[in-house]
Amino acid sequence: MSILVVGSVAFDSVETPFGQVEEILGGSGTYFSTSASFFTDVSLVAVVGEDFPEEHLDFLRSRSIDLGGVKKAPGRTFRWKGRYGYDLNEAHTLDTQLNVFETFKPELPAGYEDAEYVFLANIDPELQFEVLQQVRRPAMIACDTMNFWIEGKRAELLKTLRKVDTLLINEGEARQLAGEANLVKAARSILAMGPRTLVVKRGEYGVLMFTEHSTFAAPAFPLESVYDPTGAGDTFAGGFVGYLAATRNHSEANVRKAIVFGSVMASFTVEDFSLNRLRSLESKEIENRFQKVKLLTEFEGIG
Amino acid sequence: MSILVVGSVAFDSVETPFGQVEEILGGSGTYFSTSASFFTDVSLVAVVGEDFPEEHLDFLRSRSIDLGGVKKAPGRTFRWKGRYGYDLNEAHTLDTQLNVFETFKPELPAGYEDAEYVFLANIDPELQFEVLQQVRRPAMIACDTMNFWIEGKRAELLKTLRKVDTLLINEGEARQLAGEANLVKAARSILAMGPRTLVVKRGEYGVLMFTEHSTFAAPAFPLESVYDPTGAGDTFAGGFVGYLAATRNHSEANVRKAIVFGSVMASFTVEDFSLNRLRSLESKEIENRFQKVKLLTEFEGIG
Repeated sequence: MSILVVGSVAFDSVETPFGQVEEILGGSGTYFSTSASFFTDVSLVAVVGEDFPEEHLDFLRSRSIDLGGVKKAPGRTFRWKGRYGYDLNEAHTLDTQLNVFETFKPELPAGYEDAEYVFLANIDPELQFEVLQQVRRPAMIACDTMNFWIEGKRAELLKTLRKVDTLLINEGEARQLAGEANLVKAARSILAMGPRTLVVKRGEYGVLMFTEHSTFAAPAFPLESVYDPTGAGDTFAGGFVGYLAATRNHSEANVRKAIVFGSVMASFTVEDFSLNRLRSLESKEIENRFQKVKLLTEFEGIG
Repeated sequence: MSILVVGSVAFDSVETPFGQVEEILGGSGTYFSTSASFFTDVSLVAVVGEDFPEEHLDFLRSRSIDLGGVKKAPGRTFRWKGRYGYDLNEAHTLDTQLNVFETFKPELPAGYEDAEYVFLANIDPELQFEVLQQVRRPAMIACDTMNFWIEGKRAELLKTLRKVDTLLINEGEARQLAGEANLVKAARSILAMGPRTLVVKRGEYGVLMFTEHSTFAAPAFPLESVYDPTGAGDTFAGGFVGYLAATRNHSEANVRKAIVFGSVMASFTVEDFSLNRLRSLESKEIENRFQKVKLLTEFEGIG
């Protein structure tokens, strides 16, 4: 097994200035695994309710995602409802119904303990920690979190972070986690909590990656039509971890390429609602856009 | 003469979370000309009041800035008072006293009409247009503007823009000028107004440059201590136009380098109040930081 991801599978209802959709396929585990599946094998651990349609599972299977760890539990699937204004960088949550996710206990099926790459999507840090106790010796552990856990389960989150190689969070969360307004100082303080790499997601402004010895800035690909930013962060993580797992090379140069692939994958996701754009996406398009990001950022030395 | 800049010389009073200063040297013309002076010769056209101290003029002279076009008029110097919160990207204006700037009529001294590079800082677009009628055949005309003129003097601004090669504005102003939330679409519509190059300033998120055939994204240099963002945009413009005027090469590759030099200059300015950081700045430091931005953004191709 290459990548193990533990996260949510959900129904999203989303309102943006460009349209409105009800109960479409969403969830951090869904976006991550679909994105990563363009690069390597992925196994998803998640829970769905009895109302979850087989066609969505069929879509994930069509992406060769291993669903052995997706449990169908009595009750309804997790639901999220949100709205975005013209400033598409910020989601306003209108409603969250945890449903079957409320009692979710990630249990890894046999064989999953050998996962080489682990992505802990944004779930309760206690559950994230439990997952880490079930895996043997992953080459890389990456994780996401959010303001809710930073405020409400700080001790548990810090315990998880001590085991994590790469933390991927957005800008506001980085400032909140560190209790520091300046991002460079915040990054240094977060790196002292455990992660060797911090990836700060800034929406349409791209990504900043911090390690002890380097900083990397990647722009977001400028898009003419952004329909729905939902899932952009998890899609980014899927491309990032997916590329690293496919290449098994953690050098600075390769990690930078992984960041750009993550950014490219996210740029496709936001072009349509749900995972619709990823359904038709081809590898050729991913490579083309990677080249475009290269052209977007290149400049000569002083010379 | 290399660069002619028409803009303000002012006393700024600024409050940031890191301190407070009263009546320090500021103004768009001041920041621009000081920044550009690290690259080439600059002539400043502006007005100051009778209260303007000789020591400030001496500082500008020490940067070899030609002050033949700086008039001392009866009355008080232009004053601006502003505050920044922890989100240093946005200034809240507390007070503006135009004073001698209210009746400012830019009149170019003899010889100035041969300026090769012209920067029209953020002043009334009618005055910007009058300046352009006094110059002969500049190799490049760049200009800045703001929400106040976009709303209040749109027709006059559009008339000026038809004569301009490069427009440098911030992100919100670009959206407002185009009446379009999406920045890529907004850029296309602004390029149709006259400028061949649009530079969108995004504060700590860097710069996006648009031409008909290309887009370039430059990050801001991540800083550990940002004390005062006042003047960052004009300092950027000074580095940008300064480098182009010094190299007289308007190729895409060289314009990209100019963008990065502008960004580097701005990154120094915000490290202290007023122009204090620029007072001690050395060319070696500019080159060093340019190299650091290169390291910050580089990644390999797909290969």
